[in-house]
Amino acid sequence: MTYCVGISVDAGLVFASDSRTNAGSDQVSCYGKMHTLGIPGERQFVILSAGNLATTQAVIAQLRHELKDDPDCPLNKAPYMNEVADYIGEVSRLRQQRHRDKEAPNAGFSPAASFILGGQIAGEAPCLHMIYPEGNHITTSRATPFLQIGEAKYGKPILDRIIEQNSTLEDAARCALVSMDSTMKSNVTVGPPVELLLYERDSLVLRMYRRLDEHDAYLNALRASWAENIRLAIAALPLFTLEATGQPPGA
Amino acid sequence: MTYCVGISVDAGLVFASDSRTNAGSDQVSCYGKMHTLGIPGERQFVILSAGNLATTQAVIAQLRHELKDDPDCPLNKAPYMNEVADYIGEVSRLRQQRHRDKEAPNAGFSPAASFILGGQIAGEAPCLHMIYPEGNHITTSRATPFLQIGEAKYGKPILDRIIEQNSTLEDAARCALVSMDSTMKSNVTVGPPVELLLYERDSLVLRMYRRLDEHDAYLNALRASWAENIRLAIAALPLFTLEATGQPPGA
Repeated sequence: MTYCVGISVDAGLVFASDSRTNAGSDQVSCYGKMHTLGIPGERQFVILSAGNLATTQAVIAQLRHELKDDPDCPLNKAPYMNEVADYIGEVSRLRQQRHRDKEAPNAGFSPAASFILGGQIAGEAPCLHMIYPEGNHITTSRATPFLQIGEAKYGKPILDRIIEQNSTLEDAARCALVSMDSTMKSNVTVGPPVELLLYERDSLVLRMYRRLDEHDAYLNALRASWAENIRLAIAALPLFTLEATGQPPGA
Repeated sequence: MTYCVGISVDAGLVFASDSRTNAGSDQVSCYGKMHTLGIPGERQFVILSAGNLATTQAVIAQLRHELKDDPDCPLNKAPYMNEVADYIGEVSRLRQQRHRDKEAPNAGFSPAASFILGGQIAGEAPCLHMIYPEGNHITTSRATPFLQIGEAKYGKPILDRIIEQNSTLEDAARCALVSMDSTMKSNVTVGPPVELLLYERDSLVLRMYRRLDEHDAYLNALRASWAENIRLAIAALPLFTLEATGQPPGA
């Protein structure tokens, strides 16, 4: 399993991803799911990946080679981010199709993969897209400023409650780490190291990156602080009165 | 969909359930999922239900009738709660089987239902069981003091972080309401009114019950307070430094 989240706020973009990959509970490995490509000052892409590891590795490898070898490829030339998302979706779809044909006899096998693409092309605003296994994609809106792939449910409520267009990059990043930590607590197939990347609007460089392993001092401090803060937040909730005469249904 | 949670702490038990039932997005109804049965001073049972509504209604109706009409039925006579859970599991399994046979041609149909059973029989400690559609069941442990049925993931992290054996009933109840509210925010098929019931250890009566509809003043105050408290909890997290020289993977 995987958990990746991308957040789009006025100040820029935040990306967080876990690093656990498993093919059954007895085949667990560590692979980063955050990939960056681009041309400093011109265009920057951050890609988060979930799903079949062979598919995602093949897609990322192909994109890297094309960016390097083919000056006319969409990664180098497309003027709009949604065209880049179209292209990655097509690469992913074809790659899945190839693996599916080969593996047709294996009913339990799925080559499906999904991606979050974020970044900025000079002249456009920063943006995020979530690319489905079918190759189509959606972007964020003012009301829905974040996108998730993989094991998304455990970490969604904190994002729902905190992230707004005017959140700072730092607040969005701390919220993403709490969302990731909640998910790692609840699903053992999502695990560290956690990769975190902040992209400042219009900077067109990727330089604010951090990889936090299981015993990272900051991650531990964040966990301890959150455990305490959340306890205080519960304790500070309004007290309720339960009428002693309240009859439950059927009583 | 449904979300129900039962919590077992030293001081007693807490139950919370939503009231939305849907068979497709265009067939949404309101049904309570909290059912209470018992004999004051002797034995008290709280049953939370999820899954096929025809199954859960049939099971609850049968249990009510037997409690009333058959002095020798397990609900009246079983000395241990796990025997009551066995019995409810068997009633549920047979009821599902009957519906499944009738509806065999309808591939999309599932009569499956699951339950949380909690309460106390005089002479035993209070306890909780989660009863699967297959009729088997699990109970809580010191490390796992709560059980959920239905749409469980959104509301689990707050329970993971807060609930401990020595939590007060009031704290456990407020935590259950936050867990419920997070779930209602994320899944529109989980909805109000919210039913809340607190059972004090060894009281052998059910008297602390409250039904909170969508515009309940307390529920609104709790939501507003939580939104503010959680924002402060994020803001109070330790600040991190992102080394400006940190190179992302592939950059």
